[in-house]
Amino acid sequence: MFREYKSFIKLQELAKNPVDLTKEGFLSSERIHEMKLEICGWKMLYGTERIDNEVLENLIKLSEEARVFLKMKDMQDMKVMNFVSNCKSEERMVGHTAIRAQSISSNMSKEAKEAYEESQVELKKLEEFVSKTSEFKHMVVCGIGGSYLGALAISKALKGLHKTNRTLHFASNVDPDKIATILEEIDLSKTIVAVISKSGGTMEIKAQEQMLKNRFLEKGLNPKDHFVMVTGKGSPMDNPLLYREIFYMWDFIGGRYSVSSMVGGVPIAFICGFDVWSEFLKGASDMDTHALHEKDVKKNMPLMGALLGIWNRNFLNLNTLCIVPYSSSLDLWAGHIQQLYMESNGKRVSQDSGKFIDFSTCPIIFGTCGTEGQHSYFQAIHQGTVTVPLEYIGFFNPQHNTDQEIEGTLNQEKLLSNLFAQAISLARGQSSENPNQYFPGNRPSRMLLTNTLSAYAMGSLLSYYENIAAFQGFIWGINSFDQEGVQLGKLIANKIVEEYKSHRITKKFGADKSLDVEIAFMKELEDLSTKDRHENSKFA
Amino acid sequence: MFREYKSFIKLQELAKNPVDLTKEGFLSSERIHEMKLEICGWKMLYGTERIDNEVLENLIKLSEEARVFLKMKDMQDMKVMNFVSNCKSEERMVGHTAIRAQSISSNMSKEAKEAYEESQVELKKLEEFVSKTSEFKHMVVCGIGGSYLGALAISKALKGLHKTNRTLHFASNVDPDKIATILEEIDLSKTIVAVISKSGGTMEIKAQEQMLKNRFLEKGLNPKDHFVMVTGKGSPMDNPLLYREIFYMWDFIGGRYSVSSMVGGVPIAFICGFDVWSEFLKGASDMDTHALHEKDVKKNMPLMGALLGIWNRNFLNLNTLCIVPYSSSLDLWAGHIQQLYMESNGKRVSQDSGKFIDFSTCPIIFGTCGTEGQHSYFQAIHQGTVTVPLEYIGFFNPQHNTDQEIEGTLNQEKLLSNLFAQAISLARGQSSENPNQYFPGNRPSRMLLTNTLSAYAMGSLLSYYENIAAFQGFIWGINSFDQEGVQLGKLIANKIVEEYKSHRITKKFGADKSLDVEIAFMKELEDLSTKDRHENSKFA
Repeated sequence: MFREYKSFIKLQELAKNPVDLTKEGFLSSERIHEMKLEICGWKMLYGTERIDNEVLENLIKLSEEARVFLKMKDMQDMKVMNFVSNCKSEERMVGHTAIRAQSISSNMSKEAKEAYEESQVELKKLEEFVSKTSEFKHMVVCGIGGSYLGALAISKALKGLHKTNRTLHFASNVDPDKIATILEEIDLSKTIVAVISKSGGTMEIKAQEQMLKNRFLEKGLNPKDHFVMVTGKGSPMDNPLLYREIFYMWDFIGGRYSVSSMVGGVPIAFICGFDVWSEFLKGASDMDTHALHEKDVKKNMPLMGALLGIWNRNFLNLNTLCIVPYSSSLDLWAGHIQQLYMESNGKRVSQDSGKFIDFSTCPIIFGTCGTEGQHSYFQAIHQGTVTVPLEYIGFFNPQHNTDQEIEGTLNQEKLLSNLFAQAISLARGQSSENPNQYFPGNRPSRMLLTNTLSAYAMGSLLSYYENIAAFQGFIWGINSFDQEGVQLGKLIANKIVEEYKSHRITKKFGADKSLDVEIAFMKELEDLSTKDRHENSKFA
Repeated sequence: MFREYKSFIKLQELAKNPVDLTKEGFLSSERIHEMKLEICGWKMLYGTERIDNEVLENLIKLSEEARVFLKMKDMQDMKVMNFVSNCKSEERMVGHTAIRAQSISSNMSKEAKEAYEESQVELKKLEEFVSKTSEFKHMVVCGIGGSYLGALAISKALKGLHKTNRTLHFASNVDPDKIATILEEIDLSKTIVAVISKSGGTMEIKAQEQMLKNRFLEKGLNPKDHFVMVTGKGSPMDNPLLYREIFYMWDFIGGRYSVSSMVGGVPIAFICGFDVWSEFLKGASDMDTHALHEKDVKKNMPLMGALLGIWNRNFLNLNTLCIVPYSSSLDLWAGHIQQLYMESNGKRVSQDSGKFIDFSTCPIIFGTCGTEGQHSYFQAIHQGTVTVPLEYIGFFNPQHNTDQEIEGTLNQEKLLSNLFAQAISLARGQSSENPNQYFPGNRPSRMLLTNTLSAYAMGSLLSYYENIAAFQGFIWGINSFDQEGVQLGKLIANKIVEEYKSHRITKKFGADKSLDVEIAFMKELEDLSTKDRHENSKFA
């Protein structure tokens, strides 16, 4: 469908000759002040994107042809949006917006109301849990993928709001070194372990949980007093005999969209308090409401973000996106958005037909915080041969109240000067007699700015990105809510685990012909176990 | 030159029809066992790359036509390799291999010998410094870009070798929140601050240092007792009145190649001890020697890495590279390689002619550790529309001795099973009746394996990547050792800082027409300072 929209054809035409940001006088204060929108305390400035009014009008038409508001309404109403026609697929509702709604409104669907009410029960449990666990100092979250990355990134982002003397750790990897280093930093008698697994059946989580339980038992501590569970009702891990508390999530919450559920709630309310968590949800919900109800596309922040992304991806043919927050607290943020976008929209099947699509979907997402990135890979962004669009995030105030005036400016002002300078230099470039000092410019970017990195700002920022993922999926006509692409690796990994299991008993490798490549890798590694590191280093 | 090599033309021809990894039986145990090399305790397995013997032979010819061993010899001999002909350029020697040499050898150049001897002086100072600072518990490194990222990634990688009760922090950002959060975690009376700035003139570093000094003074502590400096001899910060110790670096050490100098030495020897640091340097030096002297290209690990990268970049036209270590200790490693590759080879000017090149150079580098990535963006790598080559890193043993057998296998074995499974599933793909469960496969990758993540292994791994950057630069014919691309942003940032300075005094924005865009951004941000977050949220 996407390629057949009238606006698609027109945009392809326009993309042959996009505006030139390097043209003398083109980037002006008027353009910066005009190309902006504002909501939930955030401003988006997009004068440094390679668009003009005609492109913008056609992007708006594209959103109309793709009927994005109807689909957003269906999603927020919890219709079954996680499906692929003519294929066996998950066939689930999508409920991450419903569970963070701030109240029941008259135009909410029955399903959304039910999800809202169920989530209120969990929130009450959470509030009580936080008030009853004041003697604990540490929390270890046992979760992988969507069950930790958002909560990790957001808890780090809210560092300035952490309760003092509490620490939060994420056992996000079956790697035994991961748990070993966490154990060095905590006192088990003052530790809560939050195990997170929607299905209750993930190999890595069970292994990590067992490893941790063994350590509690060795210390004479009863795991039941220390372990809480976040899982689906009725999952194999939904067992009140084993956990001091069980929080529920639902199959209508996909892992990467689960931060607003107890997956984020348990760790973030533990480290920041329940009030901060409530503020976060309010920010997210306000942005959800805005995404659905602001029908003036030019004022709708997530929809504009989605359309600008599609312009860069499908019409300017740029296959990466770099996300650069100018705040060291947000240093893991690009990692969460990498997961959110790439797992949601790294797809190749049409949701409506179940057939392969013939256009590009999600770009490769990467990024680190500024100014760090500037002194690192930005060389390639300025003068390399791949054009990378960017999205900056900046704050008027730092989180902490400890900034100082040094050499005539606050350090925050120095930080922001760098942010603005990157947007300008990447857009304008620089001509030079010296080819080595030539900057081609014309690198598109946009900028998100707000007053300070509060819980509310963080919630609305999360929702901005989640709703972009959804809007882009609607426009591309793909299912943004499943993740079939992770299955094949799991299947093969389980076979290799079985090989290792029998190898531990027989001390021999198996002879299954269908696993010859798997066993070849195992043998090559095993061979290293007996080697001195230098024996093959003949020149050393 | 690159495009005119005979082998280039031939490789372009071969790239029209590269091997198909998805073909029934193509990926076999024979192929895995055959396509490998081994050095310094590392194995590289590259049977999952899209190459055959003919491609390999022509890649070897490419390395011959580009005379990479001559250039590597020139580099290690410290000839002036940091230059661009017919352009004003840095005109410097490149000395990061010389300073980590293990002894003086007869075939070393005079310049390399001198650099070696100078580095031995600093190493002696470092050994003494470490032995004399046993009462200190914390180190804060004040450095940006190349002055912190490698040291951060490597010190994290060697977590299992840290001295207990010591902590290491990196004030790598002028962001005041960065220093605020570090200060919450340390006792200043037991803290060493290592300020790192080769030029001694970086705005951010001076601001960070001043902020930290003020905090020591507030506590009645004399900064001189706590601050050490790593800088160039004669730089503005080379002042023994202000520092308890000054370590030197030289203009022949570029920031991103500086880990082996005191930039890495001071923090890593502080946290792991001097012996660990020496082992690290030995690993790096052994790999340097191998890179230069192993003339059988198929056995030369960095050169093979460089050639496989160029095959994927310039002939298969893949413009990204994902680096995935299966070790949570290496979770920042891809970030360092992102800096190393993209800052070294994100270029567009021929070193020999000073003219623009007409081919692609460094791809976009990203990555996180496994299994984390698998549960996140790997969806897009398996089923998305961008083909991403990968490089995996794996270890037979974990660093810590605390692994357990759970459900019949060690957790390390579960981790490695996932590693092998990704390489296989991405190469082979999976056919399916259900388009949503179809995996196109043919995703090329290679794998680096060793026994354990020791200091020696880490040193040789660093050198592997550094020598890849150099070899690729030689083949592309670009200067891998300057970074002109970071200058324009600095220039504009300084102008905005000046605007902020006068704004602090006059409370007004300037009227300089040439800065109208800069001031437009400042105004848009300032406008947010007085806004309540909800006032513009009409639907909330």
